[in-house]
Amino acid sequence: MTKDTTRVFQHGTLATLVPGLLDGTIRLDELAKHGDAGIGTATGLDGEMIMLDGVAYLVRSTGEVKVLGPDTLIPFATVHFDDQNVEDGFEVHDLDMKQLSKHILANYPYHNIFFAVKIVGNFKYMQTRAVKGQKKPYPTLAEVASEQAIFYEEDSKGTVIGYFSPELFQGMAAAGYHLHYLDEAKTMGGHILSFGITDAKVFLQPFATIEQHLPLDNADFMHHKLDMDGLSEEIKKAEE
Amino acid sequence: MTKDTTRVFQHGTLATLVPGLLDGTIRLDELAKHGDAGIGTATGLDGEMIMLDGVAYLVRSTGEVKVLGPDTLIPFATVHFDDQNVEDGFEVHDLDMKQLSKHILANYPYHNIFFAVKIVGNFKYMQTRAVKGQKKPYPTLAEVASEQAIFYEEDSKGTVIGYFSPELFQGMAAAGYHLHYLDEAKTMGGHILSFGITDAKVFLQPFATIEQHLPLDNADFMHHKLDMDGLSEEIKKAEE
Repeated sequence: MTKDTTRVFQHGTLATLVPGLLDGTIRLDELAKHGDAGIGTATGLDGEMIMLDGVAYLVRSTGEVKVLGPDTLIPFATVHFDDQNVEDGFEVHDLDMKQLSKHILANYPYHNIFFAVKIVGNFKYMQTRAVKGQKKPYPTLAEVASEQAIFYEEDSKGTVIGYFSPELFQGMAAAGYHLHYLDEAKTMGGHILSFGITDAKVFLQPFATIEQHLPLDNADFMHHKLDMDGLSEEIKKAEE
Repeated sequence: MTKDTTRVFQHGTLATLVPGLLDGTIRLDELAKHGDAGIGTATGLDGEMIMLDGVAYLVRSTGEVKVLGPDTLIPFATVHFDDQNVEDGFEVHDLDMKQLSKHILANYPYHNIFFAVKIVGNFKYMQTRAVKGQKKPYPTLAEVASEQAIFYEEDSKGTVIGYFSPELFQGMAAAGYHLHYLDEAKTMGGHILSFGITDAKVFLQPFATIEQHLPLDNADFMHHKLDMDGLSEEIKKAEE
């Protein structure tokens, strides 16, 4: 299989998590055929997944960081093949998350497309969260998000991986930025709430193709009646 | 390239047509690498495109039906490889479009997924439309739709091709059914408004993967600021 760096692959949709369809529906080794970098979650929303160099780590609400095995089932994940030859990486210094987000959209005409964001370097501070794993019958995404653990570290060295999704695709993905973090020591990470960069290199990888994969063999997904009203509000509440 | 019959490929989004971004952005021969059946439009919305057995026909507002050449540029199209071995084709008699649409969703758990619809047979009546080609500066989709030509034929024999898209993907595609028609003599067709079936065979082809391709090399698309408010209303107005 060729490693096409112009496409992003997503299994499941964010909308499916909102009402609490939290069973894993793709094996990690199957997911890894579509990318070596990315973000996701685990069955029951048992933490925040980040994939770096083909290895998937799960940051749990206990703070534990573990490597996931190939047979782990994943309900929702977005992955791509990291383009090591990205030439438009740029250095940044003393910038927070909001300033960087603004800087990117002001300097690149990328607001209508999906692109990956990778940030490698030193962070003055990094604030993340990890949601707490749930058992069946699953609660809604908003209920799970209200039980999250928050982690904060100063002077952290590590990698941010995530995506920007255009507003048109809200519901399929989280519109805007959705970033996860793992420190170099692999001891701290999660879904990013905020950060301050001391010095880092930022890589952007725009995608021409979005491959959206749906779990056709999952009866809960197939039979669920999606409530479109308020979907966007529920997502914003849970993701921010 | 393997002909994967479990995926559908779309170039461009319906949302991009709404404000009038009507330039073709993919060559037909490139599009044909991703499917041999499907629907779409032409630069300036100069008619309704239907692809059958790898041949793309354009039904223009004049009523003319022409075969498109490989270098034709297409702004928006959805294609897939028609699965000739689809086993769950079913016979229908004396059914109109609304009854068939309802029958499908009542009998197949397909409301959350994309699937292709192919109907081959005899139609008591077939009512289609074809929008009128526009020149730059392009008007909006709603303005173009108000200038459409309507065609009506009784006792027509031919093929319906199109898609069902889940509500979550409204804007990327037209949520619900979006069907085009071409009669066997290749003299009448277009975007379907209504039909009555005398007797026909219906084939449904569900897709596990939706491949959404965006025109990253088109400056109008990249720089356009999408107005999400009222997008769904504009689409409903133009597509129905």
